[in-house]
Amino acid sequence: MIRLHGFPISNYYNRIQMALRIKGLAYEEVRAAPSRDADYLAINPLGVIPTLEIDGVFLAETHPTLEYLDEVYGETTRLMPQNALERHRVRQIVNYIDIHIDKPLRLLRDFQSKYLVDIEPFKELVRLETVRAIDGLNRIVKFSPYIAGNEISLADCAAYTTLPWFAELALRYLGDNLLAALKGFDEYKNFLDQNPDFLALHTNALKQMRVMERAKRLAAR
Amino acid sequence: MIRLHGFPISNYYNRIQMALRIKGLAYEEVRAAPSRDADYLAINPLGVIPTLEIDGVFLAETHPTLEYLDEVYGETTRLMPQNALERHRVRQIVNYIDIHIDKPLRLLRDFQSKYLVDIEPFKELVRLETVRAIDGLNRIVKFSPYIAGNEISLADCAAYTTLPWFAELALRYLGDNLLAALKGFDEYKNFLDQNPDFLALHTNALKQMRVMERAKRLAAR
Repeated sequence: MIRLHGFPISNYYNRIQMALRIKGLAYEEVRAAPSRDADYLAINPLGVIPTLEIDGVFLAETHPTLEYLDEVYGETTRLMPQNALERHRVRQIVNYIDIHIDKPLRLLRDFQSKYLVDIEPFKELVRLETVRAIDGLNRIVKFSPYIAGNEISLADCAAYTTLPWFAELALRYLGDNLLAALKGFDEYKNFLDQNPDFLALHTNALKQMRVMERAKRLAAR
Repeated sequence: MIRLHGFPISNYYNRIQMALRIKGLAYEEVRAAPSRDADYLAINPLGVIPTLEIDGVFLAETHPTLEYLDEVYGETTRLMPQNALERHRVRQIVNYIDIHIDKPLRLLRDFQSKYLVDIEPFKELVRLETVRAIDGLNRIVKFSPYIAGNEISLADCAAYTTLPWFAELALRYLGDNLLAALKGFDEYKNFLDQNPDFLALHTNALKQMRVMERAKRLAAR
């Protein structure tokens, strides 16, 4: 029994959904928002989403959770390569995305939405960090046709759900679609979009985002 | 043939050294600084340190590199547990340290040393993020006697080399030793310090830090 706690606006939530869909595992969605309530902290120690529940065990932190999912459901499509060096490439791509791309921009977004100020040097720092990470990705991605090689992997789950979100936020907070520098990404995204199970993740996330923005505008009146 | 490229002031460099020492693997140290030179980017796509070279293969990103090291030298002390749920705990601890503790503080340090300004809201954001991550760690660490359970693991390599560095920087940039909130860490650190191979990593890092600060003061005159 698999239950995914969170909300489909989150790229991390959608990353887990993508892995579950590739593996053909049935799951139930449970709406949950980030929370510091004791009950939620007991299942997710940072109080963030998503949390994956497998047979009563609660798992937090998306990439570690997906490595676990892939290990315990080994009879379904494997999302980590058999070869150790290829596994390293998958984890390296995930690190670039999670630590050097998603995280700095996420901090900038949190900063700007909390303090409603625009601090140019902070933006510059985030821009430099993410530009270098995209440049780093250019040196290791394969797109042959998957991001880490000829088999789909956890690196695709990370890239497909997080990078378009990053592009959107980079445009909004840095005034620049930094993802355009990742050569071959558009063709790769189009290729994965052909799978309606994947494309629905984006369509739904955008819909949720519009609903949330409308609610914010109404609340601000 | 294993060669570690970098500099022993880096907690990531020292994390790899710790793993190599636990596994009893001989290695050569090659001094390297972060660099955007084409030659260095070819072996480390972000231009950062450390880079681990194993038989002519260059590996970047510390935790992925250590998972690889542990997989290919499986006949030495294993640094990932045999049980899948315990492996998840190790990776979760590493994520908390790398993404939610080290990264935000590292961005704050880079920001302040680059722009020489102190932006209170940015400090507050980093403080909140790291305080919550330490609180999260409190909920998942074991210290029995190792951080993830009764066997030494990659989570110890991360915690032992990164958390004291974090405490040092938190004191310097946030005016507060936030690590004091991690219950049991001091006893755990003292326990690991009894291994002279481990303690030397800290002694040497501190020595390098003092040398660097003296050089900076001289340069500033």
